[in-house]
Amino acid sequence: MNNFIFQSPTKFIFGRDTENTVGDSLAQSGAKQVLIHYGGGSAEASGLLGRVRSSLLRAGLTFVELGGVEANPKDTKVYEGIELCRREKVDFILAVGGGSVIDSAKAIAVGVPYEGDFWDFFSGRARAVKTIPVATILTIAAAGSEGSESAVITKVDGSLKRGYSEELMRPVFSILNPQLTVTLPPFQTAAGAADIMAHIFERYFTNTPDVEVTDRLCESLLLTLLHEVPRALADPGDYGARANIMWAGMVAHNNIVGVGRDQDWSSHAIEHELSAFYGITHGAGLAVIFPAWMKFTMSHDIMRFARLAVNVFGCQMDFVAPENTAAEGIARLEAYFRDCGLPTRMVDFGGKAEDIPYLAEHLGAGDGTIGSFVPLRTSDIAKIYQIALE
Amino acid sequence: MNNFIFQSPTKFIFGRDTENTVGDSLAQSGAKQVLIHYGGGSAEASGLLGRVRSSLLRAGLTFVELGGVEANPKDTKVYEGIELCRREKVDFILAVGGGSVIDSAKAIAVGVPYEGDFWDFFSGRARAVKTIPVATILTIAAAGSEGSESAVITKVDGSLKRGYSEELMRPVFSILNPQLTVTLPPFQTAAGAADIMAHIFERYFTNTPDVEVTDRLCESLLLTLLHEVPRALADPGDYGARANIMWAGMVAHNNIVGVGRDQDWSSHAIEHELSAFYGITHGAGLAVIFPAWMKFTMSHDIMRFARLAVNVFGCQMDFVAPENTAAEGIARLEAYFRDCGLPTRMVDFGGKAEDIPYLAEHLGAGDGTIGSFVPLRTSDIAKIYQIALE
Repeated sequence: MNNFIFQSPTKFIFGRDTENTVGDSLAQSGAKQVLIHYGGGSAEASGLLGRVRSSLLRAGLTFVELGGVEANPKDTKVYEGIELCRREKVDFILAVGGGSVIDSAKAIAVGVPYEGDFWDFFSGRARAVKTIPVATILTIAAAGSEGSESAVITKVDGSLKRGYSEELMRPVFSILNPQLTVTLPPFQTAAGAADIMAHIFERYFTNTPDVEVTDRLCESLLLTLLHEVPRALADPGDYGARANIMWAGMVAHNNIVGVGRDQDWSSHAIEHELSAFYGITHGAGLAVIFPAWMKFTMSHDIMRFARLAVNVFGCQMDFVAPENTAAEGIARLEAYFRDCGLPTRMVDFGGKAEDIPYLAEHLGAGDGTIGSFVPLRTSDIAKIYQIALE
Repeated sequence: MNNFIFQSPTKFIFGRDTENTVGDSLAQSGAKQVLIHYGGGSAEASGLLGRVRSSLLRAGLTFVELGGVEANPKDTKVYEGIELCRREKVDFILAVGGGSVIDSAKAIAVGVPYEGDFWDFFSGRARAVKTIPVATILTIAAAGSEGSESAVITKVDGSLKRGYSEELMRPVFSILNPQLTVTLPPFQTAAGAADIMAHIFERYFTNTPDVEVTDRLCESLLLTLLHEVPRALADPGDYGARANIMWAGMVAHNNIVGVGRDQDWSSHAIEHELSAFYGITHGAGLAVIFPAWMKFTMSHDIMRFARLAVNVFGCQMDFVAPENTAAEGIARLEAYFRDCGLPTRMVDFGGKAEDIPYLAEHLGAGDGTIGSFVPLRTSDIAKIYQIALE
């Protein structure tokens, strides 16, 4: 196990009707002038935004609003938010939505007190040392941004999708009400769950020895999702299933199950190119990329893939040919994604062989590598896209 | 799943040699005058206290010391600490030791700014609203106090062992260096692991439906311990095994695996009487009480015990007679404790049948009940002691 530092100070307020006290929580956290940041019209239509506004007014807070955050949130919206916060002297950002809205809020929050261009953080040219505080009301279990220190933003000019992690970006508090997720369409539910599974896989595939505790924690979250996601798809109103998925989504990404081990994260980078190029939902892209990445890297550590197959997917161990067990686990993962209604091949959303060289180059590994389980060169990345194609 | 609030703000600094920077961490946390609180002579003899003092001096901090905390830490030592902190104007307490030292530090910390008797908190007569900050350097994986909001103190007058939980009692930071645990005798290692398992069992046995995610997380920690504790016992110097046990001990008790579900905690109360009466190590007492508690409560929810047997102890499910599987799981738990060198019956440490009425009465359930999985009356508690006897 590697040395590590772990601190997850976010306060999680979980359960039915919890969004109705958001105003009190903000006031207790010192907020005066709040930016309510959100996405499309569903938060308005569902009445959620109305309840949020009422709660803020009851708590004596003033606020401004910025909606219209899209999936794969864009730098242009972040600039708009930074401008608005400065002009309106916003001292607290409340993100109402999913990972895109929360990530956009985090980027605005570190951008406001920074004199340069916030993109400096995402391009690796600077580190954020100040932020205005962020709180969240989560509406989809997926990105884990409600508990994480990271954000992913897409630069419209050049379709660059880049992530940035900094401890000060963890939300002050996050409100998780599973009731808010029961109206999600099946595709969004499944894609969100694939995103959660991907956050676990990125941690699970490691070369760090002696990490049984985090291995087991990762497996327990995967088992939970295999059990609960089909329940939520069969009965979208199943509060219990929604609640289990929602807490799993947070635990999967606040890093308590990933400490002390090298993590990979190449599949996320490989998927980001698909989202940026084809506009596909992140979780759906991950359902395509992860099985392909697994097939490409399997030979590096057959026993780890066999362990996943046995401990999570319930395969019988083939003690003579463990590679058969390893492959069977990957096949079951693919079947699971398909059963959930997710794509498992690039052609499912219009991917073409001739796009692959561009995608692999655009990812930007250059002469270097990405990932740590198996460091991947640009040519390896192209091979993974090829496996994922059809 | 029940509604819940979860916040675990403690910063965990984990790994080799991490205690050597404790002075810097204290200074960054605003400490000026520190109380170094510790137990017996081993922290001195091992050189740990010397390294801690050096680190504090390098960071420009002043400090006073209070050692001599015993297992099942006593109110008398807490009063001594409160007195010392007030006299020496201590603004930060550093606990160097295991759960007893940390619990004693927490009790001192809430006692210092309180005008009344600190025991008011433990007897339920008052709630703490202020504390001086506490940090820890952990030397045994067991109590989980390094990440928890709780403490257990024994009142010498009347042998009352009582716990108190308050969010403000969570340590500011905790230093977890598995190297510090490699010199632990096998009995202490095993008893610590039994304490960790007990923290999981107290959460695992619940009547709350739809808690798959925390069920699975609990099971993953139990599986980790079954795998790692025998390794640490076979080779006490095995850093990897020690590291896995140490992180499992924290995760098991900061409550991330116990949120949203009713928890039981009757076995802890039942064990506390054994510690107070026979002076036995808490974890060893739990190894005696938990199997007995399980036998007594098994019929309440056969399927939950069968689940534990299958998912954790690797039993084959008996689909015709699940109670056989449930019983087999308990038998394997007992065998595991015995293999670890722990007692599994009260007679192993001098328990006598004639003590039982006193023990059951002294626990103080009175006309009420304790626990939530199966609410236990005093007569039930006596039956559990009887099962545990021999």
